[in-house]
Amino acid sequence: MRYELYYWASIQGRGEFVRLALEEAGADYVDVARTEGGEERMMALLGDPTLVERPFASPFLRAGKRLIGQTANILLFLGARHGLAPSGEAGRLWTHQLQLTLADFLGEVHDTHHPVAGGLYYEDQKKEAKRRAADFVANRLPRFLGYFEAVLAANPRGPAHLVGARPSYVDLSLFQMVAGLQYAFPNAMAKAPRRYPHVVALHARVAARPRVAAYLASDRRLPFNRQGIFRHYPELDR
Amino acid sequence: MRYELYYWASIQGRGEFVRLALEEAGADYVDVARTEGGEERMMALLGDPTLVERPFASPFLRAGKRLIGQTANILLFLGARHGLAPSGEAGRLWTHQLQLTLADFLGEVHDTHHPVAGGLYYEDQKKEAKRRAADFVANRLPRFLGYFEAVLAANPRGPAHLVGARPSYVDLSLFQMVAGLQYAFPNAMAKAPRRYPHVVALHARVAARPRVAAYLASDRRLPFNRQGIFRHYPELDR
Repeated sequence: MRYELYYWASIQGRGEFVRLALEEAGADYVDVARTEGGEERMMALLGDPTLVERPFASPFLRAGKRLIGQTANILLFLGARHGLAPSGEAGRLWTHQLQLTLADFLGEVHDTHHPVAGGLYYEDQKKEAKRRAADFVANRLPRFLGYFEAVLAANPRGPAHLVGARPSYVDLSLFQMVAGLQYAFPNAMAKAPRRYPHVVALHARVAARPRVAAYLASDRRLPFNRQGIFRHYPELDR
Repeated sequence: MRYELYYWASIQGRGEFVRLALEEAGADYVDVARTEGGEERMMALLGDPTLVERPFASPFLRAGKRLIGQTANILLFLGARHGLAPSGEAGRLWTHQLQLTLADFLGEVHDTHHPVAGGLYYEDQKKEAKRRAADFVANRLPRFLGYFEAVLAANPRGPAHLVGARPSYVDLSLFQMVAGLQYAFPNAMAKAPRRYPHVVALHARVAARPRVAAYLASDRRLPFNRQGIFRHYPELDR
């Protein structure tokens, strides 16, 4: 079965967490919005109020007849299908719990440049963004990265993976968080290798996985840019 | 087995979504932080970096030897145990997807009064809060409530429930969202019965369920207040 991934064609954004899982799984998928007329098809699905099980927003995944929305929910689904999460209930929920904490973290990254409204330009909320980003860098970034560092350190199977002794989708997602933060907040992240050595090592290890490395080197991997969730504005990264 | 719920003793907050599910299920549970020394025990668990599967924040649930964190994840667990979600994978994920969309909605409610930093007082971000709340009331509130209204209308089993023909935890959560919004944004919600009739009817129907009604009338139900996620500030609800 070929999956259809629906997400914006020009950014990594939330879709990237799904792309990484599909790539690591070696799954057959099409990135719909990057095909002819694909973005229109995505908007038509999102805008059809009669559609049963309609997603609120992208990314969403078509798997056979089903549409599955919400990034963490898509990963819950893919993790079970493609061996990217433990098969037992306890491990499955713990992996998902970590993913939901990453989703909270990502939401806070987004709000550093859009603290007032997603519908307004950054330039229209620059003053508020400076205050929010300062708090993010001083308090939230260390709190979240410190948490994931501690989770890696506390893993009874060793710090190479967040969950157990095998790679899971949440390892891929933490890789993406670190990659995005290094792009958006290079100053704030300069001390990361010393402060969060397990997290930074995990980032490097995931990047070196054969399928991930091939993906990152391909033109399927979009570059970071100032339309995505991770944005580099020097004034927000003092 | 007696569940232990860990959440702040003085607010409904995110914990309320779990409390409602436990109450509707008739589950045996203790609201730990509301017992002698309970808040200290909660903080000790959250602050112990050696704890395997440590939650990032409250609420979290102890179920036997397991600790389960993240509101939506706790509900995923309880839904399966207590018949508060469909048992098939497709229905289970769809229910969870709706819950995650409610979690996004709730995060935006929180940020109306805390757009800069959760660690600062409302009074220190009042100006930013006014801008953010204006956008929330004008754009985000109608978008989210309109979405849930359409999901109810599109349910092939009728608009009485979000998922299928039976109550699920996401019905309870939508009830709580409406209750909180009515408290925090009475002006903005004045037109809700006309604009979102299915949503408002669901709220009333859930409130009348015997176990929910008994809970709401008990002192286990904390009142809304200005320490919680839903806060009534007249200047944010013009």
